[in-house]
Amino acid sequence: MLYHKLVMGRSRSFDSAETQDAICSQFWDTGYAATSVDDLMQATGLGKGSLYGAFGSKHDMFVRALTDYATAAQSEFRATLEGDDAGALRRLRSYVRAVAKGPGARRGCMLAKAIAELAGRDADVDAIVSDFVKSMERTLVKCIRQAQRCGDVARDADARQLALMLLAVLRGMESLGKAGAGTATLRLIADGALASLTLSLSKRSP
Amino acid sequence: MLYHKLVMGRSRSFDSAETQDAICSQFWDTGYAATSVDDLMQATGLGKGSLYGAFGSKHDMFVRALTDYATAAQSEFRATLEGDDAGALRRLRSYVRAVAKGPGARRGCMLAKAIAELAGRDADVDAIVSDFVKSMERTLVKCIRQAQRCGDVARDADARQLALMLLAVLRGMESLGKAGAGTATLRLIADGALASLTLSLSKRSP
Repeated sequence: MLYHKLVMGRSRSFDSAETQDAICSQFWDTGYAATSVDDLMQATGLGKGSLYGAFGSKHDMFVRALTDYATAAQSEFRATLEGDDAGALRRLRSYVRAVAKGPGARRGCMLAKAIAELAGRDADVDAIVSDFVKSMERTLVKCIRQAQRCGDVARDADARQLALMLLAVLRGMESLGKAGAGTATLRLIADGALASLTLSLSKRSP
Repeated sequence: MLYHKLVMGRSRSFDSAETQDAICSQFWDTGYAATSVDDLMQATGLGKGSLYGAFGSKHDMFVRALTDYATAAQSEFRATLEGDDAGALRRLRSYVRAVAKGPGARRGCMLAKAIAELAGRDADVDAIVSDFVKSMERTLVKCIRQAQRCGDVARDADARQLALMLLAVLRGMESLGKAGAGTATLRLIADGALASLTLSLSKRSP
């Protein structure tokens, strides 16, 4: 009994992060509804009982996977865009251009897939997605304000409007990339969006 | 036997358009993988044999539904944006603003859902989506060139680049709308995107 508990405890903690990754990867590939418990068993190498015992229902597993994904994506986004005022426009530029050539565009963003599949029909997913979008917006607004402070973007431009437009373009680029738009097309969009960030400058300070 | 054939024939042709609509509506709501043949039977009121006999496999039904949806959406898009040169910018404006307040944003575009679920993994879906995006691009380029001809958009601006940016913003607005962005936020994005269409004018012709 003690031995059994020890093994259970050990195997559970040993496998936990790896199993979470496997669950997340499976949902990322095949979405929520199309992922069967059999798929999750195969992806993790666990039996149904162990899987449910350790991670709850399929819905629990999905919500946990999406939360982990969103948290990681938020940290990565902030790490890419945070820095000093002088580098703000350069950071925005390299981020938008990286999205334009982003490898793995065909696998796409797990959040975008969750939005398409479940938005408006699953309150947990809605809450995760809404938090994520607000966090991206805050990060972009902050970075654009930094660029405004050092005169790279017009000081009187509406930073929130520019941030939201950029966010829409970024989401749109991902969608068009998945729809088969090539790198040259995406780069054209990226450059156009970046130009309109700084065009507002040419207009306002002739 | 003759009677049976007559009834079959009549019921098949009577139901065909309506059944197609029901199939399309079901896939639109629940996507491809999550839609079971049982769901399709329930939506259409047909048995499995009649359904398969008249419409082929589940995949055939999906491809047909998505093709019909794309064809209708393309016609609607062209009808909205086609017209005389003088009205081109006005038509673009009212289309983009309509997307910003679009009712049913939560149900979303069936093509966007199909992209999120299947792009890169289903050659038929890839072909439909790619054709659709190219058709939207052509329609937008044409309308922007009209606006350029009558001086509402700078004549030396790259019409294709502006069209692609607008397309990305439109796809992005739909995605953000589904992610919970409110009408005021979407309107801000729409106005920003429209301003950058005409900002290029203020820059180029001071």
